[in-house]
Amino acid sequence: MERLENIGEDLLIQSLIEHVPLKNNVLLGPGDDCAVMQQVGSGDFQLLKTDSIFEGTHFMKDAPPYWIGWKATARVVSDFAAMGGKPDALMVAIALPKQQTLTNIKLIYEGIFACARQFNFSIVGGETSSNEKIVLTLSGVGTCQKPILRSGAQDQDAIFVTGELGGSIKGKHLRFLPRMHEALWLSENFTITAMMDLSDGLGKDLPRLATASQLGYEIELDSIPITNGCNIQQAIDDGEDYELLFTCNANHTESMMAEWTKIFPSLKLSKIGKMSKKCDTPLTGGWDHFL
Amino acid sequence: MERLENIGEDLLIQSLIEHVPLKNNVLLGPGDDCAVMQQVGSGDFQLLKTDSIFEGTHFMKDAPPYWIGWKATARVVSDFAAMGGKPDALMVAIALPKQQTLTNIKLIYEGIFACARQFNFSIVGGETSSNEKIVLTLSGVGTCQKPILRSGAQDQDAIFVTGELGGSIKGKHLRFLPRMHEALWLSENFTITAMMDLSDGLGKDLPRLATASQLGYEIELDSIPITNGCNIQQAIDDGEDYELLFTCNANHTESMMAEWTKIFPSLKLSKIGKMSKKCDTPLTGGWDHFL
Repeated sequence: MERLENIGEDLLIQSLIEHVPLKNNVLLGPGDDCAVMQQVGSGDFQLLKTDSIFEGTHFMKDAPPYWIGWKATARVVSDFAAMGGKPDALMVAIALPKQQTLTNIKLIYEGIFACARQFNFSIVGGETSSNEKIVLTLSGVGTCQKPILRSGAQDQDAIFVTGELGGSIKGKHLRFLPRMHEALWLSENFTITAMMDLSDGLGKDLPRLATASQLGYEIELDSIPITNGCNIQQAIDDGEDYELLFTCNANHTESMMAEWTKIFPSLKLSKIGKMSKKCDTPLTGGWDHFL
Repeated sequence: MERLENIGEDLLIQSLIEHVPLKNNVLLGPGDDCAVMQQVGSGDFQLLKTDSIFEGTHFMKDAPPYWIGWKATARVVSDFAAMGGKPDALMVAIALPKQQTLTNIKLIYEGIFACARQFNFSIVGGETSSNEKIVLTLSGVGTCQKPILRSGAQDQDAIFVTGELGGSIKGKHLRFLPRMHEALWLSENFTITAMMDLSDGLGKDLPRLATASQLGYEIELDSIPITNGCNIQQAIDDGEDYELLFTCNANHTESMMAEWTKIFPSLKLSKIGKMSKKCDTPLTGGWDHFL
């Protein structure tokens, strides 16, 4: 009998997707960082997202409660950003052990609320349940002027990543800053052909973007930005970078990089390769939730 | 040190609610069955909801997978219904044990998709995680023409419940039909002053509605509709009825009940008492997630 541990997350989703009920006002269903809906009476689009983090998987039992709340929320902000959008209103479904102290619970919510204030959106409600381990699911809506999908990359487009990759387990995976302002700036000023956020590692996420765009890629391994203290394999394999991975027409590369340095002087922007009809650089690794 | 098990769900939420970040387009934040947002360029309102069910709490390990999916989805439909609205697009965050069979997982999704088809909405995406126990969080958006809040009941309004109460643990808690069509019909044809769905039991939910409306209530215990095989205490205490609890002006009682019988001949509608400035019938019991 086929079990989840033998097939993995991507195949599971593929096997379900053909049966998904979708009505006409859904412009993009499952498979990208967010779903996209038509927004009644507006030129903008509505984005929808849900995302969970689990004690023992996404954070350890002794993680600071404030940063648990922050992480759960910032992950969703990162997904809205990856579409070229921003969150508008999120909800919090939280499961807590009965023995949890009120002080710790309030710290979790402080982290959630701090992220909402920093990125200017509302927390409009939620749900509490009892569970042996902490689980946080953040869900909600956002908007964008024009959604940037994973599927729009063109042959010979340049491939970029923000920041530095690898080693997020040392702390960044909890305390990261979602690249919302950067993604909005990119989408407003340049023609970004495809974008996603790096949550499962470059080695897993770049092939997803390439597959969605029906292309391969050629990566210059030397140009992959590596977190201090990590090696190239960690930069490719490690998950939870929460950096942007995007493509744009190669002719715009230089002007984009020059402008970027002025606007975001403290955040690296690296051109790591190009989209290609062939794929001569297999990237291995990345994180699968079930394998 | 204060722990969750000593304060319970309602007090936890109260202690958090004053710090919630809410922007101007949020008409109703936490505290009702759904949040309510202004919908750009439309006379309608957007509803937002998130809700989780856990293996071991909301369903047992041996529950039929199809009905686990159905229940997770129908609970959210019931919340949209309780606002006088309907769901438009939901997302599925699911946590699964690695050993779960593909057959079972597909059955869970069949239950989700069947509920979406029956109540005419989309499943626009989701998220999968690995966890020892199954957890399902359904979240998303809906619409209503005019939200019916818990807080609108007036002194002397008649109190109604649909269906029969108690004993849902015998099976109804998994296989229930959310009262969406009934709630839409009520809200379109009568002035429903307050409404909610019965998820934690009449004994817990009626006081919530009364508190939100700053009123008490007088209940005629004999008029509470009891599920066959249950007693009055179970009808008051048991959770997961997923029936509607609502109030309307006492003058409309007779015409409403006469019309109801024609439109929904197979579903009971019972007048169980009235809202009151005093409260001479304390109802005890109901379900708290943490106590």
